[in-house]
Amino acid sequence: MSDYSKLEKCLGYQFNDKNLIIEALTHKSFKKPYNNERLEFLGDAVLNLIVGEFLFLKFPKSNEGELSKIRASLVNETGFTRLANDIKLGEYIFISSAEERNKGRTKASILSDAFEAIMGAIYLESGLSALKPIVLKLLDESYDKINLDVLFSDYKTALQEITQARFGSIPEYKIEASFGPDHKKEFEVSIWIDEQTYGKAKGKSKKLAQQAVAKIAIDILKGSE
Amino acid sequence: MSDYSKLEKCLGYQFNDKNLIIEALTHKSFKKPYNNERLEFLGDAVLNLIVGEFLFLKFPKSNEGELSKIRASLVNETGFTRLANDIKLGEYIFISSAEERNKGRTKASILSDAFEAIMGAIYLESGLSALKPIVLKLLDESYDKINLDVLFSDYKTALQEITQARFGSIPEYKIEASFGPDHKKEFEVSIWIDEQTYGKAKGKSKKLAQQAVAKIAIDILKGSE
Repeated sequence: MSDYSKLEKCLGYQFNDKNLIIEALTHKSFKKPYNNERLEFLGDAVLNLIVGEFLFLKFPKSNEGELSKIRASLVNETGFTRLANDIKLGEYIFISSAEERNKGRTKASILSDAFEAIMGAIYLESGLSALKPIVLKLLDESYDKINLDVLFSDYKTALQEITQARFGSIPEYKIEASFGPDHKKEFEVSIWIDEQTYGKAKGKSKKLAQQAVAKIAIDILKGSE
Repeated sequence: MSDYSKLEKCLGYQFNDKNLIIEALTHKSFKKPYNNERLEFLGDAVLNLIVGEFLFLKFPKSNEGELSKIRASLVNETGFTRLANDIKLGEYIFISSAEERNKGRTKASILSDAFEAIMGAIYLESGLSALKPIVLKLLDESYDKINLDVLFSDYKTALQEITQARFGSIPEYKIEASFGPDHKKEFEVSIWIDEQTYGKAKGKSKKLAQQAVAKIAIDILKGSE
């Protein structure tokens, strides 16, 4: 049997039932009586809940649409592949030799599915309270501080409180430009407070760009206190 | 303040924080600083997990696609409206008078959203272990015994074990007919064991029809033991 201790260390979780980690790592091409598709089904649902709840609590003023949009930016094949790579999951996956030659070990769909399956397996064995901190730690370590700060903090609300107290007005955001094709558009947004601009920032949505430029304005205003 | 004790009795759950049940019952048309959309976001995710996990455990031999299909037949606007009606949720919802005149209290989208929000509120206040039995009890009470038996039990597997022991062969299922338009097709399936037919049954998918006819065959074979 392989040694999963390095993977378990990256996860911060030790499986009691080693058959469960094996099932979670087994791609359907490996032609065993089991594969990781059922655990992936479970993992997908539990990841959706964990990230959803986290955003719900972090953004008390965001509406359902905003929460859904931010969640969708994290809970998808690209996002899970990134987390799978962080814990070097590809090294442990069981795939057929054909899939091996076909670079299956680095394919986004295979890595993302295995990541979901591993999360489903931990949930199955130890429940939501055990899995939650593991998922949040992986997200926190993967997304660099600035991105995560922008994504998870409500700078717009914080800034508004500052400007209302100091200037008796609220910030204005203007879309300066947008770049790229429709499926991966970026926006550049400027910020204006009391008829003065405090900078520009780019983001993958108008909301993210606004959050980023609000952060810039907060830093400037706090520096001039 | 209204009296929610009847609703809480139907749910089998008493809210500690009455503001939470009020938020969950408040449709956006009611024009309060809060409405039930955020709780609905949370409820949607947690219902998806609870039903998914239930099916995962009940159908150990079903693959991801089958589990997804069965879940989709329960976790949707029609299904949640049905559960909302079972607990008479419409009587408690806060909606605008315009929405009231517009029969909002009986609209599927409004009822379904409020049901999800109530489930989200229970999850938020008391966690997954408190919510799970509530959801499963509501499902169990709403779907009549036969439907639920067919949906939640793996008759095909049970039958296969019986026929292998008794005849040394496995059952064959034949699609006899399909009815209705694409978006609500029904299938009729017959069952053959050892070159003899044991009956026909209809279902909303081939899988459900097969399960139903497998149940018929089991009853016949068990009667002749």
